[in-house]
Amino acid sequence: MTLKKILIVSGTHGNEINPVWAVNQFCKQNNITDKNIEYKFIIGNPLAFKKGIRYIDTDLNRSFDFKKNLNKTNYEIDRANFLAENFGINSSETCQIAIDLHTTTANMGTSIVMYGRRNVDFCLAALLQNKFGLPIYLHENDKNQKGFLVEAWPCGLVIEIGSVPQNFYDPNIVNRFLIIISDLRDEINKLKNNLIKLPKELIVHVHQGSIDYPREKNGSINGIIHPDRINQDWKQIKRGDPLFLDINGNSIFYLGDADICPVFIGEVAYKEKNIAMSYTKKELIFSSEEWVNEFLGL
Amino acid sequence: MTLKKILIVSGTHGNEINPVWAVNQFCKQNNITDKNIEYKFIIGNPLAFKKGIRYIDTDLNRSFDFKKNLNKTNYEIDRANFLAENFGINSSETCQIAIDLHTTTANMGTSIVMYGRRNVDFCLAALLQNKFGLPIYLHENDKNQKGFLVEAWPCGLVIEIGSVPQNFYDPNIVNRFLIIISDLRDEINKLKNNLIKLPKELIVHVHQGSIDYPREKNGSINGIIHPDRINQDWKQIKRGDPLFLDINGNSIFYLGDADICPVFIGEVAYKEKNIAMSYTKKELIFSSEEWVNEFLGL
Repeated sequence: MTLKKILIVSGTHGNEINPVWAVNQFCKQNNITDKNIEYKFIIGNPLAFKKGIRYIDTDLNRSFDFKKNLNKTNYEIDRANFLAENFGINSSETCQIAIDLHTTTANMGTSIVMYGRRNVDFCLAALLQNKFGLPIYLHENDKNQKGFLVEAWPCGLVIEIGSVPQNFYDPNIVNRFLIIISDLRDEINKLKNNLIKLPKELIVHVHQGSIDYPREKNGSINGIIHPDRINQDWKQIKRGDPLFLDINGNSIFYLGDADICPVFIGEVAYKEKNIAMSYTKKELIFSSEEWVNEFLGL
Repeated sequence: MTLKKILIVSGTHGNEINPVWAVNQFCKQNNITDKNIEYKFIIGNPLAFKKGIRYIDTDLNRSFDFKKNLNKTNYEIDRANFLAENFGINSSETCQIAIDLHTTTANMGTSIVMYGRRNVDFCLAALLQNKFGLPIYLHENDKNQKGFLVEAWPCGLVIEIGSVPQNFYDPNIVNRFLIIISDLRDEINKLKNNLIKLPKELIVHVHQGSIDYPREKNGSINGIIHPDRINQDWKQIKRGDPLFLDINGNSIFYLGDADICPVFIGEVAYKEKNIAMSYTKKELIFSSEEWVNEFLGL
């Protein structure tokens, strides 16, 4: 295994502050290198973090589509270029893995977000699901959402923890990030030294699409998340289950035929993306020796 | 009783959106006048609400100190003047009572905030505490915080509900506001018709002061709320109980001699006011017939 460096990014969204605290605390209390693996830590969007806002010009975590960025510039595009140039695969500080730490106002618990189906990502996600039993949200085939940070590295995952308000320090949320950061390296070392095996199968929640709030013609929201749905992320629903409450207190129902599991229910930052919730379908994926080989060969 | 109009203000802070929804829903479903009492509804800070931010220039809920405002102008000062001129005691739409609806990111539950010790406020607070058992936070003698909206009306209270993130619609929070708005008028009518009596005594949590986060010399926060303290609003603490965790994971303790009950623990919007939590002392106040007489004489 030639793996040397893991890039841990916090504050990719400037108002998600608990990961930044967790990283600082981790660095004070721990050695960030061991003989095999070195952590590199960086604040994704330092200016937005300083201001306590999600971003300056555009969402940094949609700014890593370098083809689309060609000849464009703004604070986040410049920042995406900076991160790739300094920690990307062709940089002096080459990191093979990127872990991007996020929080959500939705009641997701601690979860893993994957983008697409890379074997190396499956390997890492399987390690974490095996250790902690974390749910995995596999984001793919969404033409409206591209250019995620971790896609710019050969291997990478998002760790997403909620619910917590934006800009609210919650020591319990900090602690959950601390556990993930510290155990990540241990698990990778164990895998390398053949001390653990991947589980035979992986349960993933595969992104199917998103549902917007009911809105007025002028764009203002005229339905809120239904009491039966709020804070019920990952819970399967079927046709006829309520989604929203309109201003008269009437329910608006889910009318699709497929059973689905909503996630990011009511996430504050997604209102501007016209997303009240995304929805997923459970899929069982059998793990493969190739995942481990490719991962250890990174 | 000459009482005719109660002004219900929502969106005094533009990112506290659940009261605005509750008011709109209430108006759709209810008659806002009865033979004795008429509700007037207004969004306190419509521009901030539209933008999803707390305020434009300054905190509207500290902008009702009209002496201090003399010869000054900004969006919120203009708005405070507008509200007083149009719904204040000397306006054409005179409202005798103002109820200002707020949310907090702190785990306060549903609570009442009073400013100073006006008999009429005690009467209204006692009615609500009697009906719902709500805790009362009595804010007084704080030279750093003045000019609250409800102080500009002869009688007025804040209803404060949390925890809920800023800009997050939570139907359970909406519902709690709906209950308060609808029952308020009923309780006042009952009092007027001698159908209920005030409880003999009132438990209030009297404001004693506020505690800031530990900070670096440059002002950045270098201690977060302690896990034993987070979400424990209203719970009494004593000397030696932990308040914060520093960046090394060490606890910082409360070293005052008096037992205190912290409130607004970790409220996001108070970071800029250098408040990590405020603290209170419980006081028992005996109710008086004068409260009722003055209230019914409004």
